[in-house]
Amino acid sequence: MHEATRDAVGARLKRIEGQVGGLLRMVEEDRYCVDVLTQIAAVRAALHKVEEQILSDHIGHCVADAFTSGSAVEQRRKVDELVEAIGRMRR
Amino acid sequence: MHEATRDAVGARLKRIEGQVGGLLRMVEEDRYCVDVLTQIAAVRAALHKVEEQILSDHIGHCVADAFTSGSAVEQRRKVDELVEAIGRMRR
Amino acid sequence: MHEATRDAVGARLKRIEGQVGGLLRMVEEDRYCVDVLTQIAAVRAALHKVEEQILSDHIGHCVADAFTSGSAVEQRRKVDELVEAIGRMRR
Amino acid sequence: MHEATRDAVGARLKRIEGQVGGLLRMVEEDRYCVDVLTQIAAVRAALHKVEEQILSDHIGHCVADAFTSGSAVEQRRKVDELVEAIGRMRR
Repeated sequence: MHEATRDAVGARLKRIEGQVGGLLRMVEEDRYCVDVLTQIAAVRAALHKVEEQILSDHIGHCVADAFTSGSAVEQRRKVDELVEAIGRMRR
Repeated sequence: MHEATRDAVGARLKRIEGQVGGLLRMVEEDRYCVDVLTQIAAVRAALHKVEEQILSDHIGHCVADAFTSGSAVEQRRKVDELVEAIGRMRR
Repeated sequence: MHEATRDAVGARLKRIEGQVGGLLRMVEEDRYCVDVLTQIAAVRAALHKVEEQILSDHIGHCVADAFTSGSAVEQRRKVDELVEAIGRMRR
Repeated sequence: MHEATRDAVGARLKRIEGQVGGLLRMVEEDRYCVDVLTQIAAVRAALHKVEEQILSDHIGHCVADAFTSGSAVEQRRKVDELVEAIGRMRR
């Protein structure tokens, strides 16, 4: 991962860790379940942002490198790995 | 939320908090981006399990109560609120 | 399904059928892949709207009936079936 | 799109068109709503397969071409476009 991406991703994950802590407190304080569900959806959305940031960096660097200097086999492997990773992102 | 659900949900969220901490370390140690993506997908899947558990409890209690003792207006409101919450779960 | 819902859902599905036909033509005319992907996303979004409409009707009728006149076993079964259906909607 | 991909995608879309027709009949015959929801989920899953096939082809060809012979600006544009397309796939 590129250094600027790593810092940005680290900062986001730190915030997400805090959000999960907030969720725990909501549950302990027995807050209304629909409010808890709304907050969980917010955490998942934040994780999606992180995924997109990492993915963008990955395509722009690792995948790009394979296309500019890797073998055909290596390129195929990178594309397949990427498509698989994208498939997991959807779930 | 029912007490047993609250305990189960709390335990899961505690584990998820730890997983996010693990993600942070993976990023700091500059681990391969696809491995980080795989781990993020695992955290989101764990959050989905929590959502399903809360949702099941919510339907079985709050929504059920509205149908057995609430007014028609209250019932409609509960159904709409539930459908909206489900819509947010999908994102 | 309630009659008004059935008509609305039928009309939407008719439109979706046409959209899939449009997709087929886009592919045959060798249109740019990202435009095809955008159009597929639109079809999936339309299917989601149909799902929400059916789900809302289902909760307001079938699930409501179970809560007002079904046995505890029947109610449990309806809640579990609903949570499972919601789980499938997310994929 | 590569010719083999185009044929495979076309065949899948043809099948999906038939599935949507089947859905229409289920609704007209007033089949149980949860069964309709299950079938809609199957159609969406089939559309996802098509998306993955197109995406894999797109990365292996259009994106690869940008990396092997495009300018830095063109490469950036392709990566951004791809990440956006992936973002839409998740919804």
